[in-house]
Amino acid sequence: MELLEWGGTLKIVVASDSFKGSASTFEISDYIEKGIRRVQPDAIVLKIPLADGGEGTVDAIVTATNGNYVTKEVTGPLGQKVKAKFGIINEKVAIIEMAEASGLTLIKDEERNPFKTTTFGTGELIKAALDYGVDEVVIGIGGSATNDGGAGMAQALGVSLKDRNGNEIGYGAESLEKLSMIDITKIDPRLQSTKITVLSDVTNPLCGENGASYIYGPQKGATQDDLETLDNLLRKFGNKLEREFQINLVNRQGSGAAGGLGAGLMAFCDAKIYSGIERILSYIKLEDHIKDADLVITGEGRMDNQSVNGKAPLGVAKIAKMYHLPVVAIVGSEGNQLENVYNNGIDLVLDIVNKPMTLQDAMDNVRELTANAGEKAIRAFRLGFRVNHMKEEIL
Amino acid sequence: MELLEWGGTLKIVVASDSFKGSASTFEISDYIEKGIRRVQPDAIVLKIPLADGGEGTVDAIVTATNGNYVTKEVTGPLGQKVKAKFGIINEKVAIIEMAEASGLTLIKDEERNPFKTTTFGTGELIKAALDYGVDEVVIGIGGSATNDGGAGMAQALGVSLKDRNGNEIGYGAESLEKLSMIDITKIDPRLQSTKITVLSDVTNPLCGENGASYIYGPQKGATQDDLETLDNLLRKFGNKLEREFQINLVNRQGSGAAGGLGAGLMAFCDAKIYSGIERILSYIKLEDHIKDADLVITGEGRMDNQSVNGKAPLGVAKIAKMYHLPVVAIVGSEGNQLENVYNNGIDLVLDIVNKPMTLQDAMDNVRELTANAGEKAIRAFRLGFRVNHMKEEIL
Repeated sequence: MELLEWGGTLKIVVASDSFKGSASTFEISDYIEKGIRRVQPDAIVLKIPLADGGEGTVDAIVTATNGNYVTKEVTGPLGQKVKAKFGIINEKVAIIEMAEASGLTLIKDEERNPFKTTTFGTGELIKAALDYGVDEVVIGIGGSATNDGGAGMAQALGVSLKDRNGNEIGYGAESLEKLSMIDITKIDPRLQSTKITVLSDVTNPLCGENGASYIYGPQKGATQDDLETLDNLLRKFGNKLEREFQINLVNRQGSGAAGGLGAGLMAFCDAKIYSGIERILSYIKLEDHIKDADLVITGEGRMDNQSVNGKAPLGVAKIAKMYHLPVVAIVGSEGNQLENVYNNGIDLVLDIVNKPMTLQDAMDNVRELTANAGEKAIRAFRLGFRVNHMKEEIL
Repeated sequence: MELLEWGGTLKIVVASDSFKGSASTFEISDYIEKGIRRVQPDAIVLKIPLADGGEGTVDAIVTATNGNYVTKEVTGPLGQKVKAKFGIINEKVAIIEMAEASGLTLIKDEERNPFKTTTFGTGELIKAALDYGVDEVVIGIGGSATNDGGAGMAQALGVSLKDRNGNEIGYGAESLEKLSMIDITKIDPRLQSTKITVLSDVTNPLCGENGASYIYGPQKGATQDDLETLDNLLRKFGNKLEREFQINLVNRQGSGAAGGLGAGLMAFCDAKIYSGIERILSYIKLEDHIKDADLVITGEGRMDNQSVNGKAPLGVAKIAKMYHLPVVAIVGSEGNQLENVYNNGIDLVLDIVNKPMTLQDAMDNVRELTANAGEKAIRAFRLGFRVNHMKEEIL
């Protein structure tokens, strides 16, 4: 084994995002490892689960940090009870996915209704996390079923949203029509001393044609006719929050994330929004794991030249390049132009598609195809080394 | 540019077979070079055209050896006149493709008729080559339209095939029915002193269920009902040749190549059959070009685990490995299992398909996709080197 001649056992870090809709980060890592071992059976393969703040974020971080899961029964998007899982890492940080309590996957397609869905359960999850005495609550906010501006979340945390008669307005965007007064006197006091961090790469503002309702409303069940109404409801709520908290929200970047939950978290919880992948890489301490590696393999379902910012593989590459490590990205499919990717720390992109096939073929065979790509990554890595070794013999 | 630190300019040999039905060896080499130069603009890229004995063999060898073309008007498969091209290399060796004179591409689909098609034009081409005073005539015999056992070829070279009345039997397999006597007294005497070399990877015998008629008859226009008749005609001819020349032919490996032209060439011209790619690599002196290379890139349209013998990329790899050079194969599509390929000198297979797509998509975009794969080959090659370089700094 030639590589043994120059540095002992090879250490390979595998840190790939899931191939969304096809295989989880855990599965992808396993497949890649299988391919690696075909050619380098003695390699040290360190598999680090990865997520970008969306679905799978809690699993990835809890696994990578050897953290603990907590399950809590909370209120689902349409008022039904749901069991929602969150993570506690290092006993100091809670990781929540809003979709566990208020996500689209919790309701049937025909039940989607952005006028009625509430983030109340997400607020209950934050409350449950505060019960653990953590210093920070980290919230991944992808996949929401809601468009309530985070009103339900605030209600669960003790905020009272009152109509002109002093009664609670109820849940969902439709109730915002009646909102007359926001009473935060009974808000959970622990929020004062707890950092609230939102993981999101969504930059949409709360309102307007690029806002939460117009851009994400349709996938939550809104018709084209509903969009203006939903936008006006969020604008009314946003304007009230702006006056109450003396902050800019309606046009603020990121306030439109998760049906305006971004705005609600900024207003009620003083939340800061960060790029998902960068914070996650810091929670899982990727740098510590990566720095003595020989090769880093990352990946995601689709890579193209446009989507560099906030993508998990590029975040991994950025850290790998601090240590001048070679980085291979294994992807489900790729664009024809990849200069931006190659200029941002990825040295080689290998896609799993190995012959003309349909998307369904690729998904059905993701296991074998990804293993083959993992094998290729190591074969690629060994190519140049052998030549260099040869050269030394000749010189 | 890190590679410059260790050995000056990189020399890359590109020697790929055509992607049949999609792009020629020349086009594929150009595309690969384009990709190489994106990352290694100063590389020395030596493009060597390649063929496996089938279509494109004359072009590949003449170009690679800086030889000359000769064009000769000869008799086509159905008697029409066709312009056929052959090559003269080093003034000593002629390279002929039988398909130039007697190939399927010279007739319309509806004209295909293995009872009537003749190899007469191939015999004329051999005669024309002999006129150049060469020591060796090399014949690539893929793509034939014929099933005449090389009878026409022999007739063109002066052999008389007579019926019981002493008259010439005519052309095509159907005429063999009347064959009574073979008169070789007027065969071209120059055949005695000229080496006749057949390039072929076909191992089928002249007759029987694996013979020329049963296996290749259908693609030449035979119906299922015709096959037994065609087989019997070749058997009759083969038996006559065996008695005439006192050699084994009917069951001999390779005698069934090109509708039995293999048998005819063995009998009348004392031809020897060789694996196409190995001889071609020797004519083009691949070893001389390759031995000081840093990286070898080869390729073909489709690579799978079954087809190792006689494939151009494996022939290239065999020579490259005599010099311990890294070998990347760029292919149109690949099988899921490639152990045999990887165990026979190919270090890395990269396919051009980069997302789910149809075969037509891949063929329509062969230029850009192949350039991308060429880029990946260099990116792969540089992966390991940089790490090794790093390691040295640390140690």
